[in-house]
Amino acid sequence: MKYKYIFLLILLQIQLLYAENGYRLWLRYDKINNNKTLSYYQNSIKKIFIETSTPTSKVLKEEMRNGITGLLHQSPIFTNDRLEADIIFSINTKAKNLSEEGFTLQSKKITKNRFKIIVNAKKDIGLLYAGFELLRMIQTAQKIDSLNTISNPSLSLRILNHWDNLNRHVERGYAGISIFNWHNLPAYIDQRYIDYARANASIGINGTVVTNVNANATILTHAYLLKTKALADAFRPYGIKVYLTAKFSAPIEIDHLKTADPLNPEVQKWWQNKAKEIYELIPDFGGFLVKANSEGQPGPQNYNRTHADGANMLADAVAPFKGIIIWRAFVYSNDTPEDRFKQAYNEFKPLDGSFRNNVLLQVKNGPIDFQPREPFHPLFGAMPNTPIMMELQLTQEYLGQATQLVFEAPMFKEILNADTYAKGANSTVASVIDGSLFNHKALNGCSSVANIGNDINWCGHPFAQANWYAFGRLAWNTNLSSEAIATEWTKQTFSTAPPIVASITKMMLNSYDAMVEYMTPLGLHHIMGNNNHYGPMPWGNTLARADWNPVYYHKADSMGIGFNRTVSGTNALDQYSKQVQKNWIDSNSCDEKYLLWFHHISWNHRMKSGRTLWNELCFKYNDGVEAVKKMQALWQHAQNGIDAERFHQVEQLLSIQLTEAEWWRDACLLYFQTFSKEPFPINYPKPKYSLAYYQSLQFPYAPGGGQ
Amino acid sequence: MKYKYIFLLILLQIQLLYAENGYRLWLRYDKINNNKTLSYYQNSIKKIFIETSTPTSKVLKEEMRNGITGLLHQSPIFTNDRLEADIIFSINTKAKNLSEEGFTLQSKKITKNRFKIIVNAKKDIGLLYAGFELLRMIQTAQKIDSLNTISNPSLSLRILNHWDNLNRHVERGYAGISIFNWHNLPAYIDQRYIDYARANASIGINGTVVTNVNANATILTHAYLLKTKALADAFRPYGIKVYLTAKFSAPIEIDHLKTADPLNPEVQKWWQNKAKEIYELIPDFGGFLVKANSEGQPGPQNYNRTHADGANMLADAVAPFKGIIIWRAFVYSNDTPEDRFKQAYNEFKPLDGSFRNNVLLQVKNGPIDFQPREPFHPLFGAMPNTPIMMELQLTQEYLGQATQLVFEAPMFKEILNADTYAKGANSTVASVIDGSLFNHKALNGCSSVANIGNDINWCGHPFAQANWYAFGRLAWNTNLSSEAIATEWTKQTFSTAPPIVASITKMMLNSYDAMVEYMTPLGLHHIMGNNNHYGPMPWGNTLARADWNPVYYHKADSMGIGFNRTVSGTNALDQYSKQVQKNWIDSNSCDEKYLLWFHHISWNHRMKSGRTLWNELCFKYNDGVEAVKKMQALWQHAQNGIDAERFHQVEQLLSIQLTEAEWWRDACLLYFQTFSKEPFPINYPKPKYSLAYYQSLQFPYAPGGGQ
Repeated sequence: MKYKYIFLLILLQIQLLYAENGYRLWLRYDKINNNKTLSYYQNSIKKIFIETSTPTSKVLKEEMRNGITGLLHQSPIFTNDRLEADIIFSINTKAKNLSEEGFTLQSKKITKNRFKIIVNAKKDIGLLYAGFELLRMIQTAQKIDSLNTISNPSLSLRILNHWDNLNRHVERGYAGISIFNWHNLPAYIDQRYIDYARANASIGINGTVVTNVNANATILTHAYLLKTKALADAFRPYGIKVYLTAKFSAPIEIDHLKTADPLNPEVQKWWQNKAKEIYELIPDFGGFLVKANSEGQPGPQNYNRTHADGANMLADAVAPFKGIIIWRAFVYSNDTPEDRFKQAYNEFKPLDGSFRNNVLLQVKNGPIDFQPREPFHPLFGAMPNTPIMMELQLTQEYLGQATQLVFEAPMFKEILNADTYAKGANSTVASVIDGSLFNHKALNGCSSVANIGNDINWCGHPFAQANWYAFGRLAWNTNLSSEAIATEWTKQTFSTAPPIVASITKMMLNSYDAMVEYMTPLGLHHIMGNNNHYGPMPWGNTLARADWNPVYYHKADSMGIGFNRTVSGTNALDQYSKQVQKNWIDSNSCDEKYLLWFHHISWNHRMKSGRTLWNELCFKYNDGVEAVKKMQALWQHAQNGIDAERFHQVEQLLSIQLTEAEWWRDACLLYFQTFSKEPFPINYPKPKYSLAYYQSLQFPYAPGGGQ
Repeated sequence: MKYKYIFLLILLQIQLLYAENGYRLWLRYDKINNNKTLSYYQNSIKKIFIETSTPTSKVLKEEMRNGITGLLHQSPIFTNDRLEADIIFSINTKAKNLSEEGFTLQSKKITKNRFKIIVNAKKDIGLLYAGFELLRMIQTAQKIDSLNTISNPSLSLRILNHWDNLNRHVERGYAGISIFNWHNLPAYIDQRYIDYARANASIGINGTVVTNVNANATILTHAYLLKTKALADAFRPYGIKVYLTAKFSAPIEIDHLKTADPLNPEVQKWWQNKAKEIYELIPDFGGFLVKANSEGQPGPQNYNRTHADGANMLADAVAPFKGIIIWRAFVYSNDTPEDRFKQAYNEFKPLDGSFRNNVLLQVKNGPIDFQPREPFHPLFGAMPNTPIMMELQLTQEYLGQATQLVFEAPMFKEILNADTYAKGANSTVASVIDGSLFNHKALNGCSSVANIGNDINWCGHPFAQANWYAFGRLAWNTNLSSEAIATEWTKQTFSTAPPIVASITKMMLNSYDAMVEYMTPLGLHHIMGNNNHYGPMPWGNTLARADWNPVYYHKADSMGIGFNRTVSGTNALDQYSKQVQKNWIDSNSCDEKYLLWFHHISWNHRMKSGRTLWNELCFKYNDGVEAVKKMQALWQHAQNGIDAERFHQVEQLLSIQLTEAEWWRDACLLYFQTFSKEPFPINYPKPKYSLAYYQSLQFPYAPGGGQ
């Protein structure tokens, strides 16, 4: 036993030499350190049988080899003899209750102390997903001797949207530059592409739009399509399809056509040929994501055509190859003197039923733009004849970017669970996007704007990885709870020790509400810095378009604060179903988290707490700041259970988060106080600086801007 | 022994799980796999004594702990008892023959089978350098039982120049964006800063200019100085001083002064106050690097003052704090109708003797701009009364960027060994920059433009790390050979196995000449792509300034090719000493590697090989291409001796390098053929595409541009 002891000690030291830089994400596969648990797995998993030998099966084999070797310090034997295997991965094309990507896991007792695990799927990709599920169970120390699981994805399209430019700048990117290095593609396949695909496959993501929605036609030139093909080839074994953004003016820009009018036959022909060119290179190319007639992007309206005309023209071009078009509903114009909140609904609702059946409409979770908290978008439930995808945002453009710990699963759940009442109670947003409410079972899904860059730890903030993870897990299973996701992520990413898991998950689960409170409590929205969206700037009123300026949104004046969207205001509420309107229309009964989204409220309005609005605002802002201090305390509990490198990273970042939370509180309240004329509550923390100081701050090199 | 066997197997598998992504650079500290060598070290190094407990000594202790634990799989014991230690690190302030940073290593036999190693230095930084030297010896498997080494640096300033902007764009950066994340400084100290400092200290680099020479005055605002202080604090224990670039117009930009005239008392006062402000934050701040009146940067000439007036004004501001000014000699103007080659010399030579004694002049290795091969700069040896620093470029702006393997040590050696004949034979460039030739022993040095970015492997190309390494090692010891550097780097970075070392070093040592041949043989220069400097563009003649265009440099016409810099031409040769002129002035005896730098040569000129110039050009270009194929073959030899990840990376990159080499050959020769009207030699490889095709290529998103 002497050797065993010495070598275990050395193992520990070697692992210390390999710094925990976060690159491995939740796929760390470090040795299980509970001996009993370790033995349990070591005795149960010795031989593995994998039925097929497709590229995807080879990926499965490598992942099982690396995962089991790392977790159990015991290399699995891959056997060709199904009978002797402990885990049997088999294809069963006729499996009942399984969708194309789903899988079943079943444990079968052999003797008193022995069992086998039978994995079934219709396709190799289902087996790969099952393999990741098994590895996740082992990493999170779950029993595997009585499995009886059927797992099918809730949504058929589970897609990342990268707002990555060809020069590698990432719009709203806070984790370095794009991982896609177009310059040395197609000849250089970065290991990062493989690890990106592995990570996505491990959480069920099956598509990626690799270019920015603010599109560049160059991606559709042949040289760049060859580069795209190289990416698609690298991703294919992981079940990931590549999509591109299509710039509507591409026929003009690339081939000098005189128009990009979607009803022009030459234009139609151009896109048909382009589609053919793409599918010859990439037979399983996903399709196009299009941002048209929005924030300066060209589109069918340039030619007096509708969004449906534009989408259908592209849909016809990709239809022969089973491609799809994802058309964004994020449109608004300051030429239209209408509440920006209402514009997407006004534009698209009348088009319901006029899209081809390979078109999805991609709608952001809320009506404005990824604000800390938004009510669900009124288009959910409003277009029964059109498949509606939801667009979420992982990159925390308005949610603290990469310096703040904000776990987004509670926000995603809040939206998924929101009831549109489109077909009566329980017409949740989840039931809209999974196709069950309006019978779009073939074509449905969810996208999320990626928070990935070339930082070593992928996402900038170590906890931002949890948002990527949460998106994939929820898109696979919209019923998972935030708690379950936080717990399994923490166990894989940091530690399975119960006190550590408890502290970290508590911190995560509190973080979303904390951030909303110190940034935009009570339904405030869009009051952040110009352009870079960094920090508070409720006084902002200098941008060219009214609907880009904070003062447009909070409407603070001597009477009160908030945006009146009732019938006496813009009547945006009218876009929701009657029951939803009923919930929000009365400022005395409206859920206070949405209050200032819909009502202009007087400063001395009595809140449910009994406080005046002004005092409640002060209270909420400070509550957010105090919550960050609690997060700091919780993090200290983790110190002795995790690696020093990430502990120190997060400790520094939480300190920045506290500074930024105080900055939001002090700057916003000092500014709103110029309208309320009310004093701060007794014993309220004194702002660190003057309003003039906060207004003088400039951040010309804050990351993530448009260019 | 069963356990031992099993655990060794597991160790191997665990190491495989940790991919070799290049992050660890040459400080990998993997276990020595030759058992005899391992035992030798294990028996010799058990206990270590470190005399001091300064921050630098703590760094030394950590490095020895990590290094020895990794290499020997045996944790060293740090003892307070000098007598029982195997390695004794002691301060000896009176050590003879030691400079402030130097160290001695001596082995002392104790018994027949036991010895101690005594390390002496005047300061803790010398001990740290010695620690890295010892770890390097162990990593490269050298005997340590009969050491008797005195090591003092050849140069006192060994500095990296980062051309990094505050928005993290790196001008001429090919390895991602800047590692310096100004946005979250000073509150966030990235582990990368520490690892950067460790890597630099391990090769003796003792200074870093963290901002671009194309300067931004914002770095001198108080908010950014606080960020700079945080970096300086992180780097200090590693013996690394921070320098900044000073934008000459900063007093106007930051504090709205009406002028930046260096003779204006208000301006002088502004810089004095700024220096005071900086040194209060950073007591050991290095000083300023200045690019003035060059490529659009402001400078003293805007006010009809000389470079000396400008440099001296800044020198006076930092002198009270022992700061220095590094003033760049890289100036040229297209308003001056003079050969660009001659302009720096014309400008600065007359100023010799007029600079303050805390000013150094920083001169690029050659007269133009980091071309694949340049003759040494005529200012070396021409200014005996001024300390001249050399500026090299690690980032391969003109040398294949990050897609080509080009080991630069042979180029650095070629320049260091070049004889200026300033004081007769053996007046080498090395003797100019080390201060020995003209007695500048106190202030001398070498800078190098860094090739570092936030790519996981730091430098983009795995072999680009070798250039960073070579710079540090040569700045410490200008006498090291390219072979010695390649060998020790390879042993640390890849493997100590002799056949692997032989293959890899051969590939490295051939790479510089290969690149010169397929890009710019026989003294051609500056014929690369506009702006991005990517690929060949000898036809380029569209840029605003004549001296930015390739046609200005090669002067190909129906008669011949090359730049006549003899007396019948621009007479640039006259800037060199008589003996140097003699070597190069006759086109029949001139070293052919510099031929077209100095002579316009007719196409049918007979070369030393017996071939005509045209045929020789064809031969050389193709020879370069063939050399890349040999590099590919050598790399295949390494496959079984190194990790799969880096093997595959380099294999892909060599394939790109071959494509690019063929592109250079074919594009340049097809273009030059339009002048020579000569056929390609018999059996010469047919160009893949037409000249028109090569001329049509565009790379709008090639990395590293100015903005």
